[in-house]
Amino acid sequence: MFKTIEWKNNRVLLIDQTKLPSEEVYVTISTWQEMATAIKTMIVRGAPAIGVAASMGVALGVLGSMARDFLSLQTEVNHICGELFKTRPTAVNLAWGLDRMQKCLQKNREEPFAKLGQILVMEAQNICAEDILLNKQMGEHGQKYLADGDRVLTHCNAGALATAGHGTALGVIYAAAAHGKKISVLADETRPFLQGSRLTVWELGQNNIPTTLITDNMAGWMMKKGEIDKVIVGADRIAANGDVANKIGTYAVAILAKEHGIPFYVAAPLSTIDLKTRSGDDIPIEERAAIEVTHVKGQPLAPKDTKVRNPAFDVTPNQYVTAIITEKGIAKSPYQQSLKKLFDEVRRGDVVCPNG
Amino acid sequence: MFKTIEWKNNRVLLIDQTKLPSEEVYVTISTWQEMATAIKTMIVRGAPAIGVAASMGVALGVLGSMARDFLSLQTEVNHICGELFKTRPTAVNLAWGLDRMQKCLQKNREEPFAKLGQILVMEAQNICAEDILLNKQMGEHGQKYLADGDRVLTHCNAGALATAGHGTALGVIYAAAAHGKKISVLADETRPFLQGSRLTVWELGQNNIPTTLITDNMAGWMMKKGEIDKVIVGADRIAANGDVANKIGTYAVAILAKEHGIPFYVAAPLSTIDLKTRSGDDIPIEERAAIEVTHVKGQPLAPKDTKVRNPAFDVTPNQYVTAIITEKGIAKSPYQQSLKKLFDEVRRGDVVCPNG
Repeated sequence: MFKTIEWKNNRVLLIDQTKLPSEEVYVTISTWQEMATAIKTMIVRGAPAIGVAASMGVALGVLGSMARDFLSLQTEVNHICGELFKTRPTAVNLAWGLDRMQKCLQKNREEPFAKLGQILVMEAQNICAEDILLNKQMGEHGQKYLADGDRVLTHCNAGALATAGHGTALGVIYAAAAHGKKISVLADETRPFLQGSRLTVWELGQNNIPTTLITDNMAGWMMKKGEIDKVIVGADRIAANGDVANKIGTYAVAILAKEHGIPFYVAAPLSTIDLKTRSGDDIPIEERAAIEVTHVKGQPLAPKDTKVRNPAFDVTPNQYVTAIITEKGIAKSPYQQSLKKLFDEVRRGDVVCPNG
Repeated sequence: MFKTIEWKNNRVLLIDQTKLPSEEVYVTISTWQEMATAIKTMIVRGAPAIGVAASMGVALGVLGSMARDFLSLQTEVNHICGELFKTRPTAVNLAWGLDRMQKCLQKNREEPFAKLGQILVMEAQNICAEDILLNKQMGEHGQKYLADGDRVLTHCNAGALATAGHGTALGVIYAAAAHGKKISVLADETRPFLQGSRLTVWELGQNNIPTTLITDNMAGWMMKKGEIDKVIVGADRIAANGDVANKIGTYAVAILAKEHGIPFYVAAPLSTIDLKTRSGDDIPIEERAAIEVTHVKGQPLAPKDTKVRNPAFDVTPNQYVTAIITEKGIAKSPYQQSLKKLFDEVRRGDVVCPNG
């Protein structure tokens, strides 16, 4: 089975998600700058995956650092984190991963300077390993919502490719399948970047989940025709009130689900939930280049110099969300309380940092 | 300015809509079989345009006929109409155009046999000319709904390219612009065939209407952000109760418009309204080839052998439709009555047939 992201011999291997499904090739990332470019160009994408990637980027930066004392290293790490932070603004896991790396550095300031590199490498690897583990926990919590025979709509790719492994929304489907439930998936192609047709269809195929591809604008009609039982998506940032930023088009799917009385689930780790963001209005929405809309595989689809809007994400207000599935359990409306409760239940010690 | 369809020297010229916007090339159609292929492969598309194209196809068939008497010709025309009818099942204008050609033949059965070809050619040309005329009337009725400064969302292409000229939904926009109103358009790209990015953006550009392209899944978010004032679309068939079959994705747009309190207008000629179809449930929905979804310009987007759904149309129930704009005026809910009234007001003589 493919690996989305892997630390190996002080380098990072990324499956190149811009090349899938035509080619399954891996890119070797040796510096934090290369990691920044890989995140920006979406060689690696998906909120949890870029959280892990950014953390590994910091580790690469520390390994490559010429700093000779803690203060210089700290300054350099702050700079690296600042640059990695700017690569993509919406997914909060990126900031979360960077924050965790910075905290790890702080906690270990008394350690021998020569050991700091390996400590941070280990922290990044822990973040990666934890992500897979908590996706599996999330899957167990979430699979209770899926019944044998369910036809599930998903949007974008919230699978193993969007995480260190197993996936969030697709992780729930894998867990249901592991429990012997026959689940089939309707995958939105997810324009403009086509994460659905390129990544989700490919990944579900690798996992033997029967999948049918549709264009995004077919989802409503499929609901109307009774061909969708549940909707499950991932998230890039969830605000304290339960508003969900996710791939552009998620908002429309949520409205369509509500109109047809279909449950709309969001699966995301606590690292995607940002209690410091009060509501969806405070989530920055990345606007990407016009060429993603006007061209596919280098082929022009629209007249030259066509004016384009290309918000990469949208925000689904909490009232459209049936439940948020996390590794620590389920949150339901009112989310202000239920999300906070999940965090309160997490013992501080759950966040593992070597020597921390 | 381009011409969508034109009768010239006993041939039909079609702008090749599969080649736009990269190339503006015209295809010469000499036989009814070539016309059937052109409709099937969407060289010509759009409900009113294929109504005109099918009529001209019948005229070509009569010109090319070896029949020596009326009965043989009638049999041949019935066969031609049957074949043309099968090319695309959803748009009712096709059946309407064929029906009109058959009626014209019947009405002129007493005319000298040698004259019948020219009579039918003239009828097809009349259908074409009338279509442009009634689109302009429709535009005048509809433009009253558009205010100066309105930002209008449209889906698919219901413009000059979808008709003999001027357009239905876009015709309303052209009429508003002619009245001095500043209208800007947000165009859904309209997957899978990309009528929005390829045709609507191009056509609106030719007519100097400021246009911004979005992917279909952005429409809901643009509404949420207050960037859309009105929605206007065309139709492929409108049932007696006001249910509207139109390009796939229209149904979702209508639900999104309702959720955001945005008016949703449908512009279509009476030839698109099928009082014999009781409700949307009775409208056949064409399902097209998987390759339209899995490939763009020959480039694969999804894994090999991906299972696909590709309904080319959907049905928007009448409760989502603010008003139906026709050449004879406006219909509003309850549509059962208002649509019937429009037909009752049309004097039979309005349908012009030479010698008919």
